[in-house]
Amino acid sequence: MADQYAQSGEGKRPTEAPALRWEEPPEGPVLVLLDQTRLPAEEVELVCTDASALVEAIRSLAVRGAPLLGIAGAYGVALAAARGFDVDDAANALAGARPTAVNLSVGVRRARSAYQAELARSGDPGQGALAALAAARRLHREDAEASARMAGHGLALIDELLPGGGHRVLTHCNTGSLVSGGEGTAFAVALAAHRAGRLRRLWVDETRPLLQGARLTAYEAARNGMAYTLLTDNAAGSLFAAGEVDAVLIGADRIAADGSVANKVGSYPLAVLARYHHVPFIVVAPVTTVDPGTPDGASIEVEQRPGFEVTEVTAPQAPVTGAGGGIPVAPLGTQAYNPAFDVTPPELVTAIVTEEGAISPVTADALAELCRRARQGGDRP
Amino acid sequence: MADQYAQSGEGKRPTEAPALRWEEPPEGPVLVLLDQTRLPAEEVELVCTDASALVEAIRSLAVRGAPLLGIAGAYGVALAAARGFDVDDAANALAGARPTAVNLSVGVRRARSAYQAELARSGDPGQGALAALAAARRLHREDAEASARMAGHGLALIDELLPGGGHRVLTHCNTGSLVSGGEGTAFAVALAAHRAGRLRRLWVDETRPLLQGARLTAYEAARNGMAYTLLTDNAAGSLFAAGEVDAVLIGADRIAADGSVANKVGSYPLAVLARYHHVPFIVVAPVTTVDPGTPDGASIEVEQRPGFEVTEVTAPQAPVTGAGGGIPVAPLGTQAYNPAFDVTPPELVTAIVTEEGAISPVTADALAELCRRARQGGDRP
Repeated sequence: MADQYAQSGEGKRPTEAPALRWEEPPEGPVLVLLDQTRLPAEEVELVCTDASALVEAIRSLAVRGAPLLGIAGAYGVALAAARGFDVDDAANALAGARPTAVNLSVGVRRARSAYQAELARSGDPGQGALAALAAARRLHREDAEASARMAGHGLALIDELLPGGGHRVLTHCNTGSLVSGGEGTAFAVALAAHRAGRLRRLWVDETRPLLQGARLTAYEAARNGMAYTLLTDNAAGSLFAAGEVDAVLIGADRIAADGSVANKVGSYPLAVLARYHHVPFIVVAPVTTVDPGTPDGASIEVEQRPGFEVTEVTAPQAPVTGAGGGIPVAPLGTQAYNPAFDVTPPELVTAIVTEEGAISPVTADALAELCRRARQGGDRP
Repeated sequence: MADQYAQSGEGKRPTEAPALRWEEPPEGPVLVLLDQTRLPAEEVELVCTDASALVEAIRSLAVRGAPLLGIAGAYGVALAAARGFDVDDAANALAGARPTAVNLSVGVRRARSAYQAELARSGDPGQGALAALAAARRLHREDAEASARMAGHGLALIDELLPGGGHRVLTHCNTGSLVSGGEGTAFAVALAAHRAGRLRRLWVDETRPLLQGARLTAYEAARNGMAYTLLTDNAAGSLFAAGEVDAVLIGADRIAADGSVANKVGSYPLAVLARYHHVPFIVVAPVTTVDPGTPDGASIEVEQRPGFEVTEVTAPQAPVTGAGGGIPVAPLGTQAYNPAFDVTPPELVTAIVTEEGAISPVTADALAELCRRARQGGDRP
């Protein structure tokens, strides 16, 4: 996939990345985004001609997902530079669009540094703009390549764990090309299995409360012609009991030094079910997800999200009647417990798959060794 | 609670049964139903002046829940008789309103038999109508008394399992007074703990896909002033991991002879989580739920419900745009796995609580003994 992407040329749309692309029509360069708030009902593209349009798109969640936000931020700086806007102003506005999104500010910083270095060297803002664009494209390509490598390592692992193919894979939340410069993490592994003719079924958890599975993963599975079936999160137990799940593949928001995995709420119950039914539970995430500064699962602070995500339902075309922007389903004044993610301890994780390879069993030592290897290979072209 | 109900008098509204009541205004008798399709947004009462209005209310799910349907059917026959309609026609229409609801036809049959027997004896349709009404009220009272006894046995059990009080109870789906002539099954136990000052928190699973927890259990909890918190079904794992759940209390659709419990989808994953975290998993259901004709869990056929319940979301005030009557959230053509219930094996069930007492551990012998005891005590006044 990485090769395929490279062959597509710098100015062409990578077929695996529907979420975002750079275009250069005669009127000047633009960043085109798929408006994810309208999915799956409508495929609407947002054409950003300046950084402020992109800031608005980031704020409204039209573009979302950690790696993709970094790429978008870098392209945003390149866009401001190419169109002659103040690059520092644009960079600050972009990085501040979602202050807690670390990848966003990292991406912005990379493109701004490239711009500033080239400007200092040549004194030519046009050359600086080209350098910023090259930096954004490099970040985009690196992310796509990391996806491709994770997909390769992940497929090799499930082929090894489940000889014979015909894999029936359960996944949770959205981990595909809508959140990545490439094909994502866990979803990329399932897609690789599909392309290799070895995916019998992708079971898609709807992923309450925000329904990323129903809205986005189902969309990506349909777009790729995969055999997929949607289910409520609480129906996964029935699938396990019926012997219909061969492996669970999920992403990760953060991995502690001991191998504890923070991921979208609902991941931990799947890990417990997988263990009870002797089914492999596999986490797919780039090495950057590993946070050596977080020693263990107990050190991960679980963010509580607004209760209205639970007490109201939202849908793309639904009218807004509730205070939270959705339709109330619970009685007024109902308090909700709404953790953003949960933490799965390493003893329930069969393997962690990264672009540098997989580790199994998951131990602090194996994880540290993987990170060391990644740092050494960090200069890979 | 049974005493309290008896004291409320035959013609008065039992305070614990908001779902349904018989009234006799000067214009003639009516059956008043709480329209459950409008909850929790609005408390709208439907006043049925004849059986055909009740048939429509049953079909539209304005009144629902196995025991309550039986009671409604019996009152429907009494209503037809009191208003001078053809009782056989009314009984047939009522029993056919939801052909698979066994309790409905049982309730209809009981009132019709009472009517026919009295008519044969006295030759007076007016006396027959009174007999039908008495039969309906008896069924209603029996159900309320069974609820009260389950609540008593259940509370005694959790007090024994969890000495010290301050119970934090997790429940799933809706098992309260909206589906019962009394206060229900699992919910009635939690309510008894609340009244005894020993319920610290009721954790309410929203219960996808139809959100009976968010819509109905939260409504009942709020109505009773209980400390409750709503959560997505997949967030229960986080509560267990944090040590925030002392017991799980659920109802049952059917209990096989070996003690396997069929209940709303999402119950089995809770049982697995409860086992993993050493938390009691308690099933509360009347003895009539035990089906000696079903030997084990594998013999229970799991009904698949329409996929649109998963691919669309519905809310009381939402406009209908999807083929299934809701708002589509998944891509068009998405296939869904939507089992109506799941099956929990007896080894994961800590106890089964019935109106005849609790059994723990759950074995085929203990269950058979319980059923024997219930049959012997079946003539209890």
